[in-house]
Amino acid sequence: MEVAGSFSRLSSPRPVSFSVTNCAKYPHPNPTKTNLSFRNSGYAPVSASVERSSGSNVAVHLDSKFETILDSVKWDSKGLAVAIAQNIDTGSILMQGFANRDALAKTISSRKATFYSRSRSSLWTKGETSMNFINVHDVFLDCDRDSIIYLGKPDGPTCHTGAETCYYTSVYDILEGSKEDKEERLAKTTLYSLEATISKRKEEIETLPNGKPSWTKKLLLNQELLCSKVREEAGELIQTLLDNEDKDRTASEMTDLLYHSMVLLNLKDVSMEEVLEVLRKRFSQSGVEEKNSRKKN
Amino acid sequence: MEVAGSFSRLSSPRPVSFSVTNCAKYPHPNPTKTNLSFRNSGYAPVSASVERSSGSNVAVHLDSKFETILDSVKWDSKGLAVAIAQNIDTGSILMQGFANRDALAKTISSRKATFYSRSRSSLWTKGETSMNFINVHDVFLDCDRDSIIYLGKPDGPTCHTGAETCYYTSVYDILEGSKEDKEERLAKTTLYSLEATISKRKEEIETLPNGKPSWTKKLLLNQELLCSKVREEAGELIQTLLDNEDKDRTASEMTDLLYHSMVLLNLKDVSMEEVLEVLRKRFSQSGVEEKNSRKKN
Repeated sequence: MEVAGSFSRLSSPRPVSFSVTNCAKYPHPNPTKTNLSFRNSGYAPVSASVERSSGSNVAVHLDSKFETILDSVKWDSKGLAVAIAQNIDTGSILMQGFANRDALAKTISSRKATFYSRSRSSLWTKGETSMNFINVHDVFLDCDRDSIIYLGKPDGPTCHTGAETCYYTSVYDILEGSKEDKEERLAKTTLYSLEATISKRKEEIETLPNGKPSWTKKLLLNQELLCSKVREEAGELIQTLLDNEDKDRTASEMTDLLYHSMVLLNLKDVSMEEVLEVLRKRFSQSGVEEKNSRKKN
Repeated sequence: MEVAGSFSRLSSPRPVSFSVTNCAKYPHPNPTKTNLSFRNSGYAPVSASVERSSGSNVAVHLDSKFETILDSVKWDSKGLAVAIAQNIDTGSILMQGFANRDALAKTISSRKATFYSRSRSSLWTKGETSMNFINVHDVFLDCDRDSIIYLGKPDGPTCHTGAETCYYTSVYDILEGSKEDKEERLAKTTLYSLEATISKRKEEIETLPNGKPSWTKKLLLNQELLCSKVREEAGELIQTLLDNEDKDRTASEMTDLLYHSMVLLNLKDVSMEEVLEVLRKRFSQSGVEEKNSRKKN
């Protein structure tokens, strides 16, 4: 993506001309499934010109709401606010940079996470060199309006080192000085820590066949046992509903079902991120509901 | 928590005296389950004094690694770096503030997310007024060492408005100008968006009994159907392993299992966050593995 012009800072809504290659106005990353409508919004439009990759010009409207949003951000003395890119499926914090008004405007408009580089004093869209864009599905402002989340889906690793995210240095690992302190360990939340643990057990089976035994390894080595466990845990979860058992019991059985299902996913080389991507796409088109309505009604 | 002294900035490791009420050195939020060991670390200790709530003094060691970590952060011209607090179970970004050297040191030491208030020019520990502390399980630095994640578990809502997180203003909601644009909508990743949708369907059953039908509503109203679906989807997931079906099929069946299980969780008033908390606690004590080893071996 290349910006031929730039959004102008405006104190009042008036026409702005800019040209952005390869983007429509607010194109949704999944345009066939969700389509934001700006019709009938009833506010005075501000015109802008967006050039598609084909070279044709498409008239679009920058509107007063757009300007109002940009005005509402509490830009600091350098005209910046913190911008955090987060993976919409896993919740991983991919990277953090700063946005100025133009960077936020371009992100909202192009749906590609865009920042302001303080060292180069210029806009940069994550991925413009590596092609690992972060496709923005939503943008959130915090209560103080000085911090922004770009909630999106990365095309590939975000960090310039090739790591999935920029956060792979654990302070406690360094302090603990364990044998693992030289291993990079991405900041992972609970579900993905479990996923990493299961993967580690599988590696251990291959690299340390006589290593410490574990239940996960046993499941990985015995499909029949694993399948019977997934079935059993689903049954136990159901039973907590049928027998009106307490909440703790339900949470516990769901934990067991999740864990055993994730061992199965590992054997099939399917990540939770892939599962959640399917989930997101289904729901963005009311998929699960519609699919099941079609099947069952 | 009240800081009676503060960490001093040191260019070389030497004794530092400080007093922090209600914390031990690097206390793990779950001290019975994981215990960081600093023994045999082989580096010159720096002494500090930590006062427990009982008033007794406990000698602890601030070490050169600790100082090295603090030195390694690329503090900006004001001595600050961005600090992002993230929920370890859900991945929600709770809030973003700034940390100076003392704030990071206190966070690492006290395991309570601590920031530097630029408006008040002082340290503040999130929760010191509201009691909604963020109990820090891990601290990550990014590749450039100028951005920090406090990965932790909040005691309650993080935002001063009472919202779960500070990010509840969607730019696209405002631009879209839909009827929902006045409703606050927290920045949620895929799993929690689904959870919110299921909750919404349940509310609609109660408030709009003649509203639009949906598969989720049908499941919520028919426990027998729901239970048979959870059982069926578990069976289909298993079948993808047994029949060596392709990865897409496995991801799809896991999606179905997750979705139907989450409808069941909703009926039992159990959140995914509660499930993930159980999962984390089990795994931090090798729980699932150990429990199952005990049960089955």
